[in-house]
Amino acid sequence: MSASPENPAGYSIEAGNAASRNAYGWAKKTFANRAGKPGEAAQDLDGGFANEIRFGNARLGISSDGIGTKIEVAERVGRYDTLGFDLVAMTADDLIVAGFVPTNLSNIIDVNHLDYGVVDQLMRGLHDACNFAQIAITGGEIAELGNRIGGWPGAAMNFNWCSTAIGSLHPSLARPLSGHTAEAGMAVVALQSPSFRSNGYSLARKTLQKVLGDNWHEAPYDGADADQYATWGEALLAPSLIYSPGVAALLDAGLPLHGAAHITGGGVADNFQRVLKNGLGAVLDNLFAPLPAMQRLCEIGGLSPETAYLYWNMGTGMLLVTEEASAAAVVASLQASGYVAQVAGHLTAARGVTLRVESGELRYE
Amino acid sequence: MSASPENPAGYSIEAGNAASRNAYGWAKKTFANRAGKPGEAAQDLDGGFANEIRFGNARLGISSDGIGTKIEVAERVGRYDTLGFDLVAMTADDLIVAGFVPTNLSNIIDVNHLDYGVVDQLMRGLHDACNFAQIAITGGEIAELGNRIGGWPGAAMNFNWCSTAIGSLHPSLARPLSGHTAEAGMAVVALQSPSFRSNGYSLARKTLQKVLGDNWHEAPYDGADADQYATWGEALLAPSLIYSPGVAALLDAGLPLHGAAHITGGGVADNFQRVLKNGLGAVLDNLFAPLPAMQRLCEIGGLSPETAYLYWNMGTGMLLVTEEASAAAVVASLQASGYVAQVAGHLTAARGVTLRVESGELRYE
Repeated sequence: MSASPENPAGYSIEAGNAASRNAYGWAKKTFANRAGKPGEAAQDLDGGFANEIRFGNARLGISSDGIGTKIEVAERVGRYDTLGFDLVAMTADDLIVAGFVPTNLSNIIDVNHLDYGVVDQLMRGLHDACNFAQIAITGGEIAELGNRIGGWPGAAMNFNWCSTAIGSLHPSLARPLSGHTAEAGMAVVALQSPSFRSNGYSLARKTLQKVLGDNWHEAPYDGADADQYATWGEALLAPSLIYSPGVAALLDAGLPLHGAAHITGGGVADNFQRVLKNGLGAVLDNLFAPLPAMQRLCEIGGLSPETAYLYWNMGTGMLLVTEEASAAAVVASLQASGYVAQVAGHLTAARGVTLRVESGELRYE
Repeated sequence: MSASPENPAGYSIEAGNAASRNAYGWAKKTFANRAGKPGEAAQDLDGGFANEIRFGNARLGISSDGIGTKIEVAERVGRYDTLGFDLVAMTADDLIVAGFVPTNLSNIIDVNHLDYGVVDQLMRGLHDACNFAQIAITGGEIAELGNRIGGWPGAAMNFNWCSTAIGSLHPSLARPLSGHTAEAGMAVVALQSPSFRSNGYSLARKTLQKVLGDNWHEAPYDGADADQYATWGEALLAPSLIYSPGVAALLDAGLPLHGAAHITGGGVADNFQRVLKNGLGAVLDNLFAPLPAMQRLCEIGGLSPETAYLYWNMGTGMLLVTEEASAAAVVASLQASGYVAQVAGHLTAARGVTLRVESGELRYE
């Protein structure tokens, strides 16, 4: 991609990708262990964030993820009952973009030392998020790891939180969604994101630290939606919207999907490129306006649009590829489910993703 | 239980149990989300470390765990290709004691900053362990979390590692193993453990630190099996033996199992009590001799047998309940699979677990 600034978040996306590729290489060598047996790994989701496994007629998806350094924001604000929505969103929405309706979740909380009240808040939030997404929490572990866990020194408990979710292939689909059936001219529908979701916090925290100092979370929030959040801490803690129920409802209604992208680390273009197969590209000229907090961070931190669109979702949390004739019905279905959605652009026969946004045009090859 | 010394490992088992019970309470409230649908949670494994979920005719088990502070030993020794056996053992053996043959594993590595070579060693070891246990690695995530991850300062990379494993109910079983069909007089077969597995490291490290100082891992190992390990670091790093293939082979052979316990944190009595239902108890008078490293730690650290048997497996990694008439065949089958096994005792009509070990008799109510 052309928009690749030098490591502004303090870690290298490329080094992470290299290690992940290596790890996936080792993993693939073990697929033969289940060939023709329960737990057989289907290989047709190569490159996605969910994998398909089969048990008889059951075709399941599995996805693992954590919520990264957003936890520091919760530690600073002292509120822990919203992170469950982030935890569920990260895996449930990786499943639904492959066509798996999330059904079960197992979570692991690693703590430095236990605080019963914080764990209670975390689990209450996870319970609420799983009710929202119609998921059963069927596994869990809390591990006390002392100095192996760090975080904000003022917090009652430092912790990391990750989960593995399982989903069942939607009965209307003959195979997982992969983008292989997409064609030039198809519509791309965007789902608005009211938050950072659980990505891009290293860059956001670094920027706020530089501009506002150590206690940036207590600084008055001055984004365009300042009526909603008193402090920068609260603005950054805004929970992830879980899209899986809305997408499952689309599929239940028989509306056609040819691919879907969950916009996480790497931003709109990087994540959408994963579903562009057969040499297709896209022009997205009607994305949502940038999330006000992201817009304001760019202003006070002097960040370029290239950097912002690489690390942050910029207000769009998911993209769905559908047939032009069904685009309006897809948008209407999502709106009926309570989401903010609009047609954001179209697929093109020419490679590359073009984002036409307020600040100009960004091209990714 | 009667043998409950005051917190010698630096954390409270009771506080951990209270938080886990609370978390499980929140989790159970979400089971209704999948009632009568794919991913339905069966509630008959209450209190176990694996949960049953159903997809049509597929009856799956799911279990999540990490390898705790054993990682510090690997960081000190500088060897990372054995921890995969610990990671697989923790979840695969929680599944097999409930009758689920492990099929798939998803893993998450949280790191402070990425070291490609360390990740490569970890994943090579995980690959080897999954080949041993006939598991496919069908999910993974590496997260760079900066100062949220700590560990031994001299290591190339600090990290925590956890996994979620899925298994398929063995076709010979009408329902998961739970201990409900066990009866007084049945035999208890023990599987020898050649290592600490992945539990009890807080106490082991604390003891060595106190006696041998900061660089305890480099101190010459002087246990009874000192021919096998040069240093205390190497002795403590000995990988977990994965029992699931041996137990699956028993079931394949049609041998009867009425319950099984994976001996992890909490030791022999605490873990075995979970499978004692209907008011049954047990006398275990022929357990394996304590692991030499554990024996030597008791000597140099002045630890009582009560403490040692509460925090460590003491040489027995799994206990299986079988019919008296089948006990010899169960032992023979496990030996044929390459494990060291023996009849360790019997179930009793009276409650409580009695361990008759070298140091005397330990009773747990």
